[in-house]
Amino acid sequence: MSERPDALQRLRGAHEAVVLGELRRSGALSRSELMRRVGLSRTTLFAIVSDLLQREAVVEQTAAAQQRGRGRPPTEITLNPRGAELIGIELQRNRTHIVVVNSAHEIVGRHRAPVPGEAGPAERVDAITGAVGELLRERRIALAPLQGIGLGLPGFVQDPASADPRSMTPFAARIAAALERHFHAPVVVDNNARLAALAEVTWGAARGHDNAVYLRWSDGVGGGLVTDGRLVRGAHGTAGEIGHTSCDPGGPPCHCGGRGCLEAEIRLPALLTRCAERGVRVRDADELLSLAESGEETVRTVLREAAALAGRVLAALAAHTDPECIMIDGEPAALEDPVLTTIREQVRTLSLPTAPRDITVCRAALGADAAARGAVALLLHSHGQDLERLMPRPAPGFAASAVPAAEGGRR
Amino acid sequence: MSERPDALQRLRGAHEAVVLGELRRSGALSRSELMRRVGLSRTTLFAIVSDLLQREAVVEQTAAAQQRGRGRPPTEITLNPRGAELIGIELQRNRTHIVVVNSAHEIVGRHRAPVPGEAGPAERVDAITGAVGELLRERRIALAPLQGIGLGLPGFVQDPASADPRSMTPFAARIAAALERHFHAPVVVDNNARLAALAEVTWGAARGHDNAVYLRWSDGVGGGLVTDGRLVRGAHGTAGEIGHTSCDPGGPPCHCGGRGCLEAEIRLPALLTRCAERGVRVRDADELLSLAESGEETVRTVLREAAALAGRVLAALAAHTDPECIMIDGEPAALEDPVLTTIREQVRTLSLPTAPRDITVCRAALGADAAARGAVALLLHSHGQDLERLMPRPAPGFAASAVPAAEGGRR
Repeated sequence: MSERPDALQRLRGAHEAVVLGELRRSGALSRSELMRRVGLSRTTLFAIVSDLLQREAVVEQTAAAQQRGRGRPPTEITLNPRGAELIGIELQRNRTHIVVVNSAHEIVGRHRAPVPGEAGPAERVDAITGAVGELLRERRIALAPLQGIGLGLPGFVQDPASADPRSMTPFAARIAAALERHFHAPVVVDNNARLAALAEVTWGAARGHDNAVYLRWSDGVGGGLVTDGRLVRGAHGTAGEIGHTSCDPGGPPCHCGGRGCLEAEIRLPALLTRCAERGVRVRDADELLSLAESGEETVRTVLREAAALAGRVLAALAAHTDPECIMIDGEPAALEDPVLTTIREQVRTLSLPTAPRDITVCRAALGADAAARGAVALLLHSHGQDLERLMPRPAPGFAASAVPAAEGGRR
Repeated sequence: MSERPDALQRLRGAHEAVVLGELRRSGALSRSELMRRVGLSRTTLFAIVSDLLQREAVVEQTAAAQQRGRGRPPTEITLNPRGAELIGIELQRNRTHIVVVNSAHEIVGRHRAPVPGEAGPAERVDAITGAVGELLRERRIALAPLQGIGLGLPGFVQDPASADPRSMTPFAARIAAALERHFHAPVVVDNNARLAALAEVTWGAARGHDNAVYLRWSDGVGGGLVTDGRLVRGAHGTAGEIGHTSCDPGGPPCHCGGRGCLEAEIRLPALLTRCAERGVRVRDADELLSLAESGEETVRTVLREAAALAGRVLAALAAHTDPECIMIDGEPAALEDPVLTTIREQVRTLSLPTAPRDITVCRAALGADAAARGAVALLLHSHGQDLERLMPRPAPGFAASAVPAAEGGRR
């Protein structure tokens, strides 16, 4: 059966994950102690450790606090704190965020760099590879254990002409291919806001929850859904576009082609305009927040109305997807009152109030790194088929067929 | 490792699934032909076949069209067309639907029976067990291969007091436990409308799609979402409540505790009331449909307005979850114009019109059996951990721990 090599591969991957997981929990361990704890055979365990040593994912060290005796001093295996296992990258229009994560799943390097807004794909790739290179040199991080790169991009990432979710837009495909060539590691790609949602579920405000809604409210309005522990991408890779909920079908046209979209109503520039219309000049988001905090009533009313609209959309989403946690990210989320209080009230009163539910509405926790960390989370969540599905290239390996294994090698 | 017995069990389950899958594709096969096709060892294959024979999931028959020769006539293995592998049950307020499915995943029995609306759990269980018994006798179906029972119930099925999705409401738990005792098979439970959504994705209007939205529009309004091939249940088991989208936060109170809910606006009784208010007396849904078909303008306008409201909600859902297919079920869905046309138009013009998407809006295909068939689909989709998660009882087997296998048996 064609399933078998795949199953063995997965089993090997699972064994490796068990070994790394035990080292994450316990720190340094001797081979025999590791063997006892994970319950693998000596042959299997030693082969896995030898492979991990070669990849510099783990290192060998002389055991401390050992009694002196005859023979070689015993050695212990421990995760390589300076080995880059995963790299997460967020590409914004005029900025790039990079995080480097070791086998202990600790962030060992962070980089934030401006990129000219008009930069093309080639320049952006150069900026990324340059920044990563510098980061590795500076922190003396080894690239040998690198297992994958996660890449977050703004907008739609899936090729409009293809139903295959591995088919990326030309922009996404070009950047992914260049990174793959440079780093010799697979690249997975997804939308920025969705990745931030995944990061918040993995390490942030919705940690430990399998069902969550994430709203990013800033110059634009986007979001992401996680259901049953999985990031929702949708059939065409456009899921999570909370900003393009039509709140008024007769409203003004939106750049998405729709009308009366939430984004057009509540994005920061729209709030500044609305304040001006009501006689209060506000320069930018910072001033908006400080005026609201100092009790300026017009500004507070504008924010309250916007939050009520966002709250209605989130209440509907909560009736549809039943999350445990709704997270608000972006500048307005800093205002507990009137922003979070108003959204909370809308969700409480409009979304199945009599149903046995407990939904937390809170501020997102991870800040500017969220999407880059989400790109790492995407790699950690992805395994086997899922990872292949997200890789913008034909999957290698075994096509499903009924050809017996002995004949399966021919092509 | 505690993972190991589980992994072996899953491997055995996977082998059995491969054997049954090959028999579904190919019909009757000799043991040696079956062995060649599935690539399993003689020992493994013969053990699996012997087990399947004992469970009456497959039967042995003398091979047809064989040349006469010496020795025993060769025998072939084929699926038992009269073996009940799975039973799907939908309990409505005053009706019960039952489908029985064999190992070929063909429906071998169907039953629809009225139940008094005031019947308690015990009477309902008696009605089900009686109806199944009759069906089995009538059709001469063997119960020996029974692997599981899927049960669809109206309303919320999860226990409000518990975060554990296996904890059912007392009503659901009581019925599930009684069926489990009677049939000696595990019972999985979910909400009716959600199960209908799953059935439509598995065999109906959205067959082959991994992302779909299902709206059930009748005396009540409910629904279900499928994302990435999985039914969305949500954190508290309330996902899919499309009918309780608030369309007007200042609108009339709804029984869910909210205001201006879609259900209150468009459910059939509300449409009849609206027609009466506009001077057209309509008795019931049948008359509503025939008046609309005959061109009665008031009735058509009432239906068009209701469809526009439903369409707005579905357009928002399409921006959030990005389905390939939106299915409408229930009486109004029979009207291509003005119902489906209006919903289609709303989705087309309000949900990311410039995005590279192709969303079908169509009528659901499975009719009254949908939820009972969905209960079967739930069993087919569930395996391993997922199945355990849906079973309303403590999962047997191995708790996750680092205790070596040799010590794992103690309790």
